[in-house]
Amino acid sequence: MSDKIKIGILGAGRIGKLHAENVVVMSEVEIKTIADPFANEQTQAWAEGIGVKNVSKDPNEVFNDPDIDAVFICSSTDTHSQFIIEAARAGKHIFCEKPIDHDIDRIKEALAVVEEAGVKLQVGFVRRFDHNHQKVRDIVQAGKIGEPHIVKVTSRDPEPPPVEYVKVSGGIFFDMMIHDFDMVRYLAGSEVEEVYTQAAVLVDPAIGEAGDVDTAIVTLKFKNGAIGVIDNSREAVYGYDQRVEVFGSKGCVQDFNDTPSTTVLSTVEGVFSDKPHWFFLERYNDAFIAEIRAFVDAIVNDTEPVVNGMDGLKPVLIADAATKSFKEGRPVKVAE
Amino acid sequence: MSDKIKIGILGAGRIGKLHAENVVVMSEVEIKTIADPFANEQTQAWAEGIGVKNVSKDPNEVFNDPDIDAVFICSSTDTHSQFIIEAARAGKHIFCEKPIDHDIDRIKEALAVVEEAGVKLQVGFVRRFDHNHQKVRDIVQAGKIGEPHIVKVTSRDPEPPPVEYVKVSGGIFFDMMIHDFDMVRYLAGSEVEEVYTQAAVLVDPAIGEAGDVDTAIVTLKFKNGAIGVIDNSREAVYGYDQRVEVFGSKGCVQDFNDTPSTTVLSTVEGVFSDKPHWFFLERYNDAFIAEIRAFVDAIVNDTEPVVNGMDGLKPVLIADAATKSFKEGRPVKVAE
Amino acid sequence: MSDKIKIGILGAGRIGKLHAENVVVMSEVEIKTIADPFANEQTQAWAEGIGVKNVSKDPNEVFNDPDIDAVFICSSTDTHSQFIIEAARAGKHIFCEKPIDHDIDRIKEALAVVEEAGVKLQVGFVRRFDHNHQKVRDIVQAGKIGEPHIVKVTSRDPEPPPVEYVKVSGGIFFDMMIHDFDMVRYLAGSEVEEVYTQAAVLVDPAIGEAGDVDTAIVTLKFKNGAIGVIDNSREAVYGYDQRVEVFGSKGCVQDFNDTPSTTVLSTVEGVFSDKPHWFFLERYNDAFIAEIRAFVDAIVNDTEPVVNGMDGLKPVLIADAATKSFKEGRPVKVAE
Amino acid sequence: MSDKIKIGILGAGRIGKLHAENVVVMSEVEIKTIADPFANEQTQAWAEGIGVKNVSKDPNEVFNDPDIDAVFICSSTDTHSQFIIEAARAGKHIFCEKPIDHDIDRIKEALAVVEEAGVKLQVGFVRRFDHNHQKVRDIVQAGKIGEPHIVKVTSRDPEPPPVEYVKVSGGIFFDMMIHDFDMVRYLAGSEVEEVYTQAAVLVDPAIGEAGDVDTAIVTLKFKNGAIGVIDNSREAVYGYDQRVEVFGSKGCVQDFNDTPSTTVLSTVEGVFSDKPHWFFLERYNDAFIAEIRAFVDAIVNDTEPVVNGMDGLKPVLIADAATKSFKEGRPVKVAE
Repeated sequence: MSDKIKIGILGAGRIGKLHAENVVVMSEVEIKTIADPFANEQTQAWAEGIGVKNVSKDPNEVFNDPDIDAVFICSSTDTHSQFIIEAARAGKHIFCEKPIDHDIDRIKEALAVVEEAGVKLQVGFVRRFDHNHQKVRDIVQAGKIGEPHIVKVTSRDPEPPPVEYVKVSGGIFFDMMIHDFDMVRYLAGSEVEEVYTQAAVLVDPAIGEAGDVDTAIVTLKFKNGAIGVIDNSREAVYGYDQRVEVFGSKGCVQDFNDTPSTTVLSTVEGVFSDKPHWFFLERYNDAFIAEIRAFVDAIVNDTEPVVNGMDGLKPVLIADAATKSFKEGRPVKVAE
Repeated sequence: MSDKIKIGILGAGRIGKLHAENVVVMSEVEIKTIADPFANEQTQAWAEGIGVKNVSKDPNEVFNDPDIDAVFICSSTDTHSQFIIEAARAGKHIFCEKPIDHDIDRIKEALAVVEEAGVKLQVGFVRRFDHNHQKVRDIVQAGKIGEPHIVKVTSRDPEPPPVEYVKVSGGIFFDMMIHDFDMVRYLAGSEVEEVYTQAAVLVDPAIGEAGDVDTAIVTLKFKNGAIGVIDNSREAVYGYDQRVEVFGSKGCVQDFNDTPSTTVLSTVEGVFSDKPHWFFLERYNDAFIAEIRAFVDAIVNDTEPVVNGMDGLKPVLIADAATKSFKEGRPVKVAE
Repeated sequence: MSDKIKIGILGAGRIGKLHAENVVVMSEVEIKTIADPFANEQTQAWAEGIGVKNVSKDPNEVFNDPDIDAVFICSSTDTHSQFIIEAARAGKHIFCEKPIDHDIDRIKEALAVVEEAGVKLQVGFVRRFDHNHQKVRDIVQAGKIGEPHIVKVTSRDPEPPPVEYVKVSGGIFFDMMIHDFDMVRYLAGSEVEEVYTQAAVLVDPAIGEAGDVDTAIVTLKFKNGAIGVIDNSREAVYGYDQRVEVFGSKGCVQDFNDTPSTTVLSTVEGVFSDKPHWFFLERYNDAFIAEIRAFVDAIVNDTEPVVNGMDGLKPVLIADAATKSFKEGRPVKVAE
Repeated sequence: MSDKIKIGILGAGRIGKLHAENVVVMSEVEIKTIADPFANEQTQAWAEGIGVKNVSKDPNEVFNDPDIDAVFICSSTDTHSQFIIEAARAGKHIFCEKPIDHDIDRIKEALAVVEEAGVKLQVGFVRRFDHNHQKVRDIVQAGKIGEPHIVKVTSRDPEPPPVEYVKVSGGIFFDMMIHDFDMVRYLAGSEVEEVYTQAAVLVDPAIGEAGDVDTAIVTLKFKNGAIGVIDNSREAVYGYDQRVEVFGSKGCVQDFNDTPSTTVLSTVEGVFSDKPHWFFLERYNDAFIAEIRAFVDAIVNDTEPVVNGMDGLKPVLIADAATKSFKEGRPVKVAE
């Protein structure tokens, strides 16, 4: 047992718990400590249930523990870059939830410390590990659609978050479309150079009053010449709508939503099939396991994580440009 | 027989012949004259084959014939507005192929003459009569998706036209996306206020040398607050790709391509189904019949054509704004 | 005009009218006479509407007219074999609706007269001309699924016929499944050797009281070793359900129902798509045209009709065996 | 920890290992002993890897251990009924892989002992726990298709088992179609009264030489009047083909195969989508977990297992009748 990778988890909210439960069944990994400033009896009971004994309110119990090899940063976004820096300085590998930060300078500082420390950093862009999107990417990479010309991402949440959350979220481009900015880079195999944002408040006026939008279309120009478009809505009443399409010189590849079953019912009223999964945890359940699997493998095999620090920075730069485009009503270069 | 609607057809090219063949089997209509400056022996033979005796090189044989009730303008785009004016002054109802003109002033002039003459004018936006798009529109109109938030149109040709044609086509926005500008108005039930164009030459450098683009994404802002996006490519190697989607507060409606058959073959190599129809004449075959049916019905029942003069003007205004947006790299208001 | 094929139509009921309207637009054919014992003013008006002047109550006006080259037998089933004999003796090519007869001896007699007369006989198994089934057959013929092992046909009507009709129909195997017996021969490329019938009255007890069944599954054994199954129901409340599947050593090919549109609506209630076409005339509309086209081509090019007299006889033999199997509760050889 | 359900597993072959790995992560269950006559060092290593210490060659170490609450019988079919009897006499709950036995008297004897002992017995008809088939059954149970009229099951393996296995398998009806006999009972909500078998050797002559068939269609008559059909093939080269359909007075419900992804690729060659999962462990992976979950829940909540002893007996009776029908070439009543 002594050669297992020891892990410390920072943050025991929804996503921290999810990662912990996925990690705990992997034979080469052991969770040593879970640290969360709000840890309480329920946290303790849940941790015991998955066989973890150390629960603390202090992240330093993770950073200062020489036994711990790797840290999962699942705390609130405003702590991410600081925790990356501390974990890196302590020589620990890092899995950090997206986004690294809303502040580009802080991200760059954190990445610099990571590089200096020579530790591995993987950022939680989980959708890259989805079986559908991955197959699309594989087909594009294999050249089956030729040169990519048009990249399209449809990404709609089943219901908007609470307005209180919207206020601290950094806005739809940093909070929601950030995943899609990562996805288009992944699919196109090329960097985004310029964006233009068309957006509106159509779902809930309270979102507008909070200074955000809830419906947005962003067009993109890639370095390789391709163009693209992402559409987001905070409320797709029929469920979590996640589809991508890459069109190129030799063809087109798309994926469609996963559904709870393949069942089709035909009656006098019509032909009915399943709605998409309602929740991101259902749709991306296997992808959450696969991304942790990949992180553990990167440590075990000493390879570069498949979603590294630059992959964490780039979508934030695009989100920044998309926000500026919306505010100024003009196309904005990512390099601006 | 004397109470049949007598028709004169101007232009016996591909589209003129198509309309003639669709009209000739309708019992309440009779084609009296076909006029085309390039009419030759083949034209004569074809006309006889469908039972039409008068073939002329002179459009005045149509305009000056008091017997003729309605005119089909299927000649080249540069003749459309002039022929509309002459037909209207002669008191004849008019079916005119799209676009009416590339010049907005000339369109307005033609529409004014039509209005003064009190004749009916239907413009050939045939896709409104497609069984799939029409069902999408009906579902939107019936309120089944609630308020429209996002309107999406994918429209890709199977192969680019000859570069010689590209040069005189008015560009992709006037020649190809014009149909999609009409479609988004039809689907959204609202006017387009502003557009932004992202476009590129990715299919054939010769198209770029001819001053045009071959791949384009245009985002749109509608009067009712909805936003939208159209993507066009001159070359989808798998066939004619025509899909629309309207997303709203209560749901989402999409349509998919028609295929020659519903057959699915599963082998060790994979699961294969039919490609979309290759050609617009196959995909929109029934729609071409339905639009003429609607025009004839409008005459017989003395009702307003379902695609009238303003429907002919508006997409040209949008195409103009989209072209300007591309040239100037900024969002452009249609009212500019 | 004098070299057009002159046609006489016997029977001006639904199917006679359908064929007449499909034939009348074909340029190399001309309908000279329509004969129906129940012809009345409406028949006359309809005939004039499609440009046919001769309407008679007497079939001999067709048989005795030396001008007439080909006869369409669209009258009631009990007249088919006699009309075939008379038409053949008069030297006329014959298109005969299915089934030729319920009496096997009478069919054989008619076929003998046809052969002696050297005229062409095509039987109206229209489904062979359906775009979906034809593609399935082409894929099988091309060897893409290897040797056929299992042939499956699902064939369900939207609603049962009137009980009065059921009484004279010859029963579900002669009236409805006869099409499927033809279809399995067509798909398997092999003759049926043995059948076993499992059947019940589940839709309407009145059908049972009329001596028939309304739901049936028939298993089949083919000469080439393949096995198969057909299921029929007189009432599929969601519409006309017509699907086939051929499974073989190298794969499987299936087809699915045609629908009025490809539209998909997603709401909080579910995901809805179109029901199959309701009526056989909608589903097989193009196939009805294609079969007449094929018959006309066979005359023009002097080739064997694609559905010939033996193709008319064989399904009746199978229907006979299936009926016997049901009555006697045992597998029955077609050769019995 | 002392209140966990202690489990003994008999048989550490493929299916025994699968169940052990699924059970071991359930928090209320603990595997105490794994017994397999062929247990070796590999078995030991695998058991340790999942945290199980006791590995034995002697099943009595399970039967005689008063600590053990429940037994999983995953050994070869010929041991099932004897092991059920011994486990029941030792007062242990039983999960037994299908089929219980090929000998009906031995099954009845085992069920009698189970009943006398008052222990729970669940039989491993895993497909009842499949998300697709379960949804079909739920829709039927909810009355959405009205009264069932026709029940159809397509069930094809990706490749035939070794001929050595075929020889001891009891034949296709006991080994493979047994699952489908369970499925039709589950879907129809009614017992099978009569069967008729049409079968052939089409995949591999060696299977015929071993006294079995590899391709079969069995028609069924249910107590509630419905009729049905199952088709089986030992070799579907495109993958594991598992589809069901229930047609009734108010509609039809079907399910389709699961696929690795929803991706669709369109190129000039055609439109390609994923093949079904290749292997039953991929298709029914979640169902294997769900069936064990259900067994554990039945113990914890002291409820009747959802697939009980009678559900284990009935499909064997049907398999027996299907085998007899094939041998004697006649319909056979299950009660015979």
